[in-house]
Amino acid sequence: MTDVAPKAVVLLSGGIDSTTTLAIARDEGLACYALSFDYNQRHRVELEAAANVAKTFGVIDHRVVKIDLRAFGGSALTDDIDVPKDRPLPSPPTPLPEGEGSEDIPITYVPARNTIFLSFALAYAEVLSATDIFIGVNAIDYSGYPDCRPQYIKAFETMANLATKMGVEGQRITIHTPLIDLTKAQIIKRGIGLGVDYSLTFSCYDPELDNRPCGHCDSCLLRAEGFREAGLTDPATA
Amino acid sequence: MTDVAPKAVVLLSGGIDSTTTLAIARDEGLACYALSFDYNQRHRVELEAAANVAKTFGVIDHRVVKIDLRAFGGSALTDDIDVPKDRPLPSPPTPLPEGEGSEDIPITYVPARNTIFLSFALAYAEVLSATDIFIGVNAIDYSGYPDCRPQYIKAFETMANLATKMGVEGQRITIHTPLIDLTKAQIIKRGIGLGVDYSLTFSCYDPELDNRPCGHCDSCLLRAEGFREAGLTDPATA
Repeated sequence: MTDVAPKAVVLLSGGIDSTTTLAIARDEGLACYALSFDYNQRHRVELEAAANVAKTFGVIDHRVVKIDLRAFGGSALTDDIDVPKDRPLPSPPTPLPEGEGSEDIPITYVPARNTIFLSFALAYAEVLSATDIFIGVNAIDYSGYPDCRPQYIKAFETMANLATKMGVEGQRITIHTPLIDLTKAQIIKRGIGLGVDYSLTFSCYDPELDNRPCGHCDSCLLRAEGFREAGLTDPATA
Repeated sequence: MTDVAPKAVVLLSGGIDSTTTLAIARDEGLACYALSFDYNQRHRVELEAAANVAKTFGVIDHRVVKIDLRAFGGSALTDDIDVPKDRPLPSPPTPLPEGEGSEDIPITYVPARNTIFLSFALAYAEVLSATDIFIGVNAIDYSGYPDCRPQYIKAFETMANLATKMGVEGQRITIHTPLIDLTKAQIIKRGIGLGVDYSLTFSCYDPELDNRPCGHCDSCLLRAEGFREAGLTDPATA
């Protein structure tokens, strides 16, 4: 990675998807700047995973932005609502409490999360003069999340180009979603092909007190299913 | 304000523009929920002004979200760059340090600030099931800020309707910018007409240690010019 490589901001949670996305961005020869969020998530151990991943991949910089998504409540990932366990995948719609949101979004949905995350990525990109932003969203596994769909990403990109001087001056900002059409198994195979060590990654929404994954939340189940479908053993639980 | 009034999220900094915007939203009969940000701004006394304004206007709730815009640097409002003083208005372009941003944005521009603020407003709106978001942006006085232009706001609105279940289900989310075409003097006159007490508001980017406005930053100069043009005395400095 040299100083002349184009810069990219990569959203990095430390899970399988964002780690694979970082591997893809690096494979494209980009100078990667990782961005993570400390949003008082139940699964804060993922921030340690993100730091380890960022270090292993030799990113130029890794910023962790503290934000307060709990200020609004409304999600099992940041609130005192129980994380659902052992339910069939793909996640069935789970009603949120009256007035707390719409009926068909999984309870683990954090309101406007990708919009907030991408907005911070845009701020970071603007400071860096980087025109490429990578996010590991996936339209297949999480079809209940409206902000994982290609049309949403496209609309964000259009907005980003109007929001910033870079965009206004014709330096086109691109939001890259290399995983958007892949299944979890395909994502894992892609990452393995790029040399990703998935033992560094962490996926659980509701880890045990000793930080071991619970093995029963949607994210654990999806991860296990992904490795099973890929015909591989998960190195994090092996 | 009754329970049946439609809900609106109003971005409230405690300055003239956002306070006038809140007055307009309330005048339209909306049940207002105010949202402010603690972003380690130099001018944190504005948060006290926001709290006083919110209380005076009888908002249903006032949330203050702590966010860390300093994580990226790049602006005189959050960084250790000096706030420019006594320069001619409207703010001329001031070059940012090489690699820190584009040349024509005022140094007081915070990267992607309105995008970040509107993203949090969208999250709050989603939790409240509110379809109306008010922001006091102004295309006239701050023409150097790309995220104060109508085409940017429109693009954010389009994105917001794709980002959320509300939008996807046909409950159209609207970003209201009632001040977008008004001069500061027109904004003040509009607010006075709605009974706004501007002594509650605070505008300075770089207040004195005793929290008095400096009187010399862009924001102080713009405020003074606005009152002068409106033929009124600023009650905050009278």
